[in-house]
Amino acid sequence: MAFPIITLTTDFGPSSPYVAAMKGAMLSINPGLRIIDLTHSIAPQQIADGSFALAEAAFSFPLGTIHVAVVDPGVGTHRSIVYAEIAGHRFICPDNGLLTRLADRLPPTKIIEVTNKQYFRPTVSATFHGRDIMGPVAAHLSLGLDPDVLGASISELSRLDLPDACRMANRIEGQVISVDSFGNLITNITREMLAGVPTDESVTVRCDEHETQGIFQTYGEQPAMTLVALIGSNDQLEIAIVEDSAQIMLGVGSGAPVEVRW
Amino acid sequence: MAFPIITLTTDFGPSSPYVAAMKGAMLSINPGLRIIDLTHSIAPQQIADGSFALAEAAFSFPLGTIHVAVVDPGVGTHRSIVYAEIAGHRFICPDNGLLTRLADRLPPTKIIEVTNKQYFRPTVSATFHGRDIMGPVAAHLSLGLDPDVLGASISELSRLDLPDACRMANRIEGQVISVDSFGNLITNITREMLAGVPTDESVTVRCDEHETQGIFQTYGEQPAMTLVALIGSNDQLEIAIVEDSAQIMLGVGSGAPVEVRW
Amino acid sequence: MAFPIITLTTDFGPSSPYVAAMKGAMLSINPGLRIIDLTHSIAPQQIADGSFALAEAAFSFPLGTIHVAVVDPGVGTHRSIVYAEIAGHRFICPDNGLLTRLADRLPPTKIIEVTNKQYFRPTVSATFHGRDIMGPVAAHLSLGLDPDVLGASISELSRLDLPDACRMANRIEGQVISVDSFGNLITNITREMLAGVPTDESVTVRCDEHETQGIFQTYGEQPAMTLVALIGSNDQLEIAIVEDSAQIMLGVGSGAPVEVRW
Repeated sequence: MAFPIITLTTDFGPSSPYVAAMKGAMLSINPGLRIIDLTHSIAPQQIADGSFALAEAAFSFPLGTIHVAVVDPGVGTHRSIVYAEIAGHRFICPDNGLLTRLADRLPPTKIIEVTNKQYFRPTVSATFHGRDIMGPVAAHLSLGLDPDVLGASISELSRLDLPDACRMANRIEGQVISVDSFGNLITNITREMLAGVPTDESVTVRCDEHETQGIFQTYGEQPAMTLVALIGSNDQLEIAIVEDSAQIMLGVGSGAPVEVRW
Repeated sequence: MAFPIITLTTDFGPSSPYVAAMKGAMLSINPGLRIIDLTHSIAPQQIADGSFALAEAAFSFPLGTIHVAVVDPGVGTHRSIVYAEIAGHRFICPDNGLLTRLADRLPPTKIIEVTNKQYFRPTVSATFHGRDIMGPVAAHLSLGLDPDVLGASISELSRLDLPDACRMANRIEGQVISVDSFGNLITNITREMLAGVPTDESVTVRCDEHETQGIFQTYGEQPAMTLVALIGSNDQLEIAIVEDSAQIMLGVGSGAPVEVRW
Repeated sequence: MAFPIITLTTDFGPSSPYVAAMKGAMLSINPGLRIIDLTHSIAPQQIADGSFALAEAAFSFPLGTIHVAVVDPGVGTHRSIVYAEIAGHRFICPDNGLLTRLADRLPPTKIIEVTNKQYFRPTVSATFHGRDIMGPVAAHLSLGLDPDVLGASISELSRLDLPDACRMANRIEGQVISVDSFGNLITNITREMLAGVPTDESVTVRCDEHETQGIFQTYGEQPAMTLVALIGSNDQLEIAIVEDSAQIMLGVGSGAPVEVRW
């Protein structure tokens, strides 16, 4: 790419100096790099949240973008670091399941276990592989390094055991899997699973103990403070309170059961 | 511009993957773009806060900068999206009053209702027009697109009904309109309105039930924990507690009445 | 540098419009600039925290990087603004001790008191020298300006009186000096001071009232919820709870006494 882009996804917290240390290490290798924060607000060590955030945003970047994800409770232990190619995008992360949601959409076309120390920082700490291994390797790739020199090809990524939604004759059972900054509850029920399901008031969407009728297009179709179900911008069923936070108003979060019945 | 700049102002929360999704969509159209966060900490759906943040920072950018603002409670409903030029800067946002404070300073020299789908994302969701319409349109403009092709010219922007300060014979009545991250209370009383008002201790500034004498130049002229009034960096009267938070110490926030009497 | 880099360290809060105003002012002078956030999460006016964050991340950037740090309780008073060169990096900040931790590692090779108004913003406010002085001066330097024109050379930077750790015959006494976003407690006891100290269970690390045996390499060597001591990624002794927050679990923070005994 003429304008190499690297995105960063971490659990370091917004505005953390650790993020800056990673960026500095990368820019020291390729000062022409542009680095975009995907998010640094993953809850500490919550790999499933990191996997969801990557699925939410990574594919909207240009083909060839390198995405570095560091949610890494096992840093410095036996877990390995992987390079993977999925849908024309490139990923570097610990092999702990961070790519599960992306790999569920499209299988990786290449997976490499990153072992070649030549592209690491000269001194590698035991606790900060984002700065010392993953960032530097990504920066070298952005300069045109052939990923095959990073290590041996492997056949499978580690996977998280994520809850699946399930469609039956006249209902779908799923879960809230994420809460966005508006307090909207994002579920694992996809637009695809909802094919053929009515959207008028003959359909009931239940989240925990709360129910609403119909599946809407957008928030503003209903008055403020109304509970609505709709298919969100990433093609997943969302439960929302118009102009307020469903998370706070309903008192529910990730893991809450969701049922669509018609 | 040789180095096209786009700023982003949203209520998505700092470090939100939604922000990253917008950036990815823009970089997919113009990979040479530089994108600067103006702020993502606008309280959800608080258009007045967004209007204030834009007024606080937009004009410090180079002429020709494109500012995209997405505080958009009406997304997917009948509200329109506008392109506007103000003071040599370019803005894209929902037509919901976000530009009120800027347009109060200088009238827009061009307003266009953005309707030409050719510059939208191929698939437009009903709930995320930042990623699917406003971001992509801004990215096309950064490549040199003539704004006149975006849609028809219109004569007026929607406006928020914002509280005005009022100067009488020997006093000014205004309000706190924003609180910054230091807890300083920013008011709608401008340097201009204070022309000719004494700054010595013959002037009393009252905020809610709290009073102080004199208008100072800067915080450090008084000892720590002192209540002071001063004209802040954007030429607006501020109420501050030296080295502490006026918001917390006085227990007041946006909307609190402020009176300058001499 | 072909790709001039400026980093920003402030106490403005993440995603503050004040940060954007600074960036706009700098880009107005050098639109080719790349600006990286080091951190904006310094607690308001906590110079010691700013000094620590700079030490944490500044040196990982390429040589020649310009680091602007604005934690500035004395803005608009008699405190001066300085330009300093340390270890091939360049710094601009108020002369209030912000560079203490960096200068403790390596003495500055050049210090200049910044007084030449020619490189300031045309109008300088009394309360926002980040936007009006420090940012613009940094932007001019990024265009190749000779720092010697900024003002007169001075011989010493102001210093903070920071707590030092102390090694005795069979113990070291230090303090917690920072808490990271994971709740890990970073101390002022360095790897260097620990030279020759055993790392097996014959060594006891005590933080406030809590004790642990041994000094580990990384978090994941012990089970979740275990209290561990280890040497972190910046070569300083850390107290951590595996996969949880030591700050919350132990109820301690900056200033807590730490003792290593063997």
